[in-house]
Amino acid sequence: MSALPREKESRPSQAVVHELAQQLRADSIRCTTAAGSGHPTSSLSAADLMATLFAWHLRYDWDDPKLANNDRLIFSKGHASPLLYSLFKSVGVVSDEELVGTYRHTGSRLQGHPTPLLPWVDVATGSLGQGLPAGVGMALAGKYLDKLDYRVWVLCGDSEMAEGSIWEALDKAAHYGLSNLTVIVDVNRLGQQGPTELEWDLEAYRQRVEAFGCRALPIDGHDLEQIDEAYSKAQQADRPTVILAKTIKGKGVPEIENKNGWHGKPLPPEMAKKAVRALGGERSLHVATPPRVPRPSEVAAEPDVAVPLPRYALGEKVATRKAFGDALVALGARPKIVVIDGEVGNSTFTEAFKAVYPERFFQMFISEGQMIGAAVGLSARGYTPFAATFAAFMSRAYDFVRMAAISQADIGLCGSHAGVEIGQDGPSQMGLEDIAALRAVHGSTVLYPSDATSAAALTREMADLSGVVYLRTTRGAYPVIYAPDESFPIGGSKVVRRSDDDRVLLIGAGVTVHTCLEAADLLAKEGIPVRVTDLYSVKPIDAETLVRSARATGGRLVVVEDHYPEGGIGEAVMEALTEAGESFKLAHLAVRGLPGSGRPAELMEAAGISVEQVAAATRHLLDK
Amino acid sequence: MSALPREKESRPSQAVVHELAQQLRADSIRCTTAAGSGHPTSSLSAADLMATLFAWHLRYDWDDPKLANNDRLIFSKGHASPLLYSLFKSVGVVSDEELVGTYRHTGSRLQGHPTPLLPWVDVATGSLGQGLPAGVGMALAGKYLDKLDYRVWVLCGDSEMAEGSIWEALDKAAHYGLSNLTVIVDVNRLGQQGPTELEWDLEAYRQRVEAFGCRALPIDGHDLEQIDEAYSKAQQADRPTVILAKTIKGKGVPEIENKNGWHGKPLPPEMAKKAVRALGGERSLHVATPPRVPRPSEVAAEPDVAVPLPRYALGEKVATRKAFGDALVALGARPKIVVIDGEVGNSTFTEAFKAVYPERFFQMFISEGQMIGAAVGLSARGYTPFAATFAAFMSRAYDFVRMAAISQADIGLCGSHAGVEIGQDGPSQMGLEDIAALRAVHGSTVLYPSDATSAAALTREMADLSGVVYLRTTRGAYPVIYAPDESFPIGGSKVVRRSDDDRVLLIGAGVTVHTCLEAADLLAKEGIPVRVTDLYSVKPIDAETLVRSARATGGRLVVVEDHYPEGGIGEAVMEALTEAGESFKLAHLAVRGLPGSGRPAELMEAAGISVEQVAAATRHLLDK
Repeated sequence: MSALPREKESRPSQAVVHELAQQLRADSIRCTTAAGSGHPTSSLSAADLMATLFAWHLRYDWDDPKLANNDRLIFSKGHASPLLYSLFKSVGVVSDEELVGTYRHTGSRLQGHPTPLLPWVDVATGSLGQGLPAGVGMALAGKYLDKLDYRVWVLCGDSEMAEGSIWEALDKAAHYGLSNLTVIVDVNRLGQQGPTELEWDLEAYRQRVEAFGCRALPIDGHDLEQIDEAYSKAQQADRPTVILAKTIKGKGVPEIENKNGWHGKPLPPEMAKKAVRALGGERSLHVATPPRVPRPSEVAAEPDVAVPLPRYALGEKVATRKAFGDALVALGARPKIVVIDGEVGNSTFTEAFKAVYPERFFQMFISEGQMIGAAVGLSARGYTPFAATFAAFMSRAYDFVRMAAISQADIGLCGSHAGVEIGQDGPSQMGLEDIAALRAVHGSTVLYPSDATSAAALTREMADLSGVVYLRTTRGAYPVIYAPDESFPIGGSKVVRRSDDDRVLLIGAGVTVHTCLEAADLLAKEGIPVRVTDLYSVKPIDAETLVRSARATGGRLVVVEDHYPEGGIGEAVMEALTEAGESFKLAHLAVRGLPGSGRPAELMEAAGISVEQVAAATRHLLDK
Repeated sequence: MSALPREKESRPSQAVVHELAQQLRADSIRCTTAAGSGHPTSSLSAADLMATLFAWHLRYDWDDPKLANNDRLIFSKGHASPLLYSLFKSVGVVSDEELVGTYRHTGSRLQGHPTPLLPWVDVATGSLGQGLPAGVGMALAGKYLDKLDYRVWVLCGDSEMAEGSIWEALDKAAHYGLSNLTVIVDVNRLGQQGPTELEWDLEAYRQRVEAFGCRALPIDGHDLEQIDEAYSKAQQADRPTVILAKTIKGKGVPEIENKNGWHGKPLPPEMAKKAVRALGGERSLHVATPPRVPRPSEVAAEPDVAVPLPRYALGEKVATRKAFGDALVALGARPKIVVIDGEVGNSTFTEAFKAVYPERFFQMFISEGQMIGAAVGLSARGYTPFAATFAAFMSRAYDFVRMAAISQADIGLCGSHAGVEIGQDGPSQMGLEDIAALRAVHGSTVLYPSDATSAAALTREMADLSGVVYLRTTRGAYPVIYAPDESFPIGGSKVVRRSDDDRVLLIGAGVTVHTCLEAADLLAKEGIPVRVTDLYSVKPIDAETLVRSARATGGRLVVVEDHYPEGGIGEAVMEALTEAGESFKLAHLAVRGLPGSGRPAELMEAAGISVEQVAAATRHLLDK
């Protein structure tokens, strides 16, 4: 995997690198002052680190950002975007006009924090402690899947070293022997509100990094030779390397160097002008970063492989989580499918995939944030990652999921053990807010199958969807209600019980589809025909069918969900009907109390979502 | 702070402690087999550790769990609840009948994972890596606020050491010199799905723990003398101590000792019977855990202190986040108020509190999970914690907030920099799903003030509310619209513009109240009178006033929110009106695209929530 650093004889001189660093500083100041906001001082501290990287080590074809063995660079300290964009200017892909004239403007691709609107940015950063976890995912791809000699370089801030996610990431980097990963920590001592916890105590950082299994290289982050040497060593290492670079915040502008109170503040125009002059004025140095040779073709496109889905007999009792695992195995025929576990693969059934495709299964142990971070990184490398844990514990990674949407990552998430239906383990293990949380993620898809057939079919669909896709599965085994070849388009729904005389529409999803079907049987015996909808696609929602069914039943609806009432299926239905301009009377049965432990049926009864309670709500609607 | 271990001459013999451990094992097996679920093997590994603690070290008055200087015990590995409840039997507060007859039954207080339904449980656990962060909060209370000599003992599993939150917690424990905290890691080598990452590599754990500033004591977790010695050392230490106890999962039942495949599985009845017999049969050993002397009275109740709120002039432009900080300072007159920061206190304005009450301000640096964990621990000790970060980053701690609700913790959270209104920093810094996430937390309150007066008043209200209370604040400064003495009851709303001829109801909250008021001015000029509601209490919602206003305006509503549409204010309004049985036509203006960077007004326009867009939606409703 390791690659030689660029040959010393053909590279720019140290004087040129120094000039480049000064240009990066001047440009960082210029663009932030022009924008009236941004983080110049956090950019200045890392300018020497990045100038050295670009001039002497980074291998990248700027005309072909998709080139498979380009090195990858992640600014985990996303607020140093002025530096990143100044680097883009130095390699000629962003003009000085764009940099200084559009930074942080509405509509500009040069946003306050980097996003993949820029073709050279693989993942969005700005929520600290997330760039490195994504970098671990990319380095996993490089070492185990792409098997190419590119390196992943991650620039971290020192403040973000306080995030637990950084240690989850370094732990996994060491566990997987990611010698292709180099982390550069810009230890500039000052955070947003004052000194960081460890300030310039590089020795404390060193001990932590080494204890977590990585190689630590403490250096002076303004000494070009030391930086160069560290980068060279990193490329020869047999482990991930963390370069601990002691730097000065605001370096290069004496009035603000190492001074508190200058975080996230542009220099006033006069001060900026003076500083730029002192740094050597405006320049347009150009730096070349040759790609590695030979140039491989882009990682091969996914071949068109048939994915024969598992088949289940009608009436057979199969848990949807089991069907998810079965479908993953089927999908495994496609070489881009990878699966990431949070040490619960025997509950979520990702272990089924592991048994067949161990080389595309990554164990993150119990670190849900890193699990999603890895998924984002793998997605950025062109893979189709599935990550699964209990629905309840998806909340641990919510910030990562939110950022995945900004990264435009295509990731499949599965949350198992949803709702009070899990029973005895109690509320800490019950996903009861996951639909609300996942619906609110930008561009997300939220799926909630009721049986094994639909669970397998929807898992298959997930592999080809864009954005964050969430599948909610159930712990217990319930009867298969769909024949094997039924299709489940995203944004659709199924009317699973209907007559021409239906008086009320019962809407369920997942386990409550079975509740609704049983309630319909009960009501039918009483002479009350009801329609039942399986709302397996919670987002996007099948507004058209809902409107039609609601009209057919006189606008009377009962929504039943194993989820807290806020932000769940009931509100999704209300939103859809309201947007369509429909009038309706709706009884919303959801989990309103704090559940405890108990048998699933007892807990569903206690939550007010049992068969009899659905029937009672239906009768009550008709009595009104 | 340090206290001597119990005098050796008066304590039970080692033989008795061994007997106790065997009883705990037998009882853990009995209750899980009776329940048909649960985690016996994870209980067996820690039985010697806990028997030694209870027999020789723990100081606790079981008749008075509120006693101020009781030691505190947290099972961070909450799935070992059989062991915890067996300990409760051994001290005489839970009967054998309750233990074996009700464990995991519907309605039992002996739930699958511990919750504060039991008076001896301070915080709910079961989401791994959260008990220790809460323990850090309790130890902060003990050392810096209560100033009593109780100790906080936390039992961790080894699997949860992979959670970044554990390292955030140890880091803060060391930073604050919490010598009153003892962490006992039950290193039983096996996780849910197989071997843990580090298995029995105590040396690797030792290096990590010491690198994070704590004292590490590796021991044999089945050697009562080694355990005893470690506990004694911990009580003499000047730092937090982490006891790394090598144990055997399933210890005491040779057929399952150190065997994979037995996680979370009760023994079949016959096997259980045999195991209990081998462990010495059913017993009722009683262990005494004397409280410390002298017995202090319970931590003094909060004195009734006047909290004169800051006053703002009508029309003055003040950011709600600034008013939150001002109100915190006012609340500081109450000695139970504490504030926790995630290194953004100069953005959230908690720094105002720090300036006046530094002794009740705790800096968690950038570790939002630990920030909420500390809040939960402080709440469990009777304090009223406020924790603040950007609304976007509250998502980092969502699992902690979810668990706080199960812990019945009373915590005040503030998320600043909500919505696209923040402008140039871009989407990574914009809270756009926080309302959905926080509404879906059980028993939560969600507040969103529009001006400084209401922000200060609501902050004041937060201090006396139960459960998780979330206040959403805005970055920019907007005019004060309420006079200083206006009151803002929780669950209320304000009609801020009305006439008898109002044709449409505009509903805003936070920044969009100003948008709605400006739109109302615009529409008034066109001869369209509209009513405007400030929905400052998003949850609970003022259904009564909403219904009255909706009826007065012919059921025509426009809801405007700086949040994604799912789970936000619009859906809260739909839910309230639907539950009340009202018919309505509602235009829902919310952030539907992925925002970028830009000026606040431009971004609000791009998101479709500008003044003109509200007016247009209003006209469109009337045209229909």
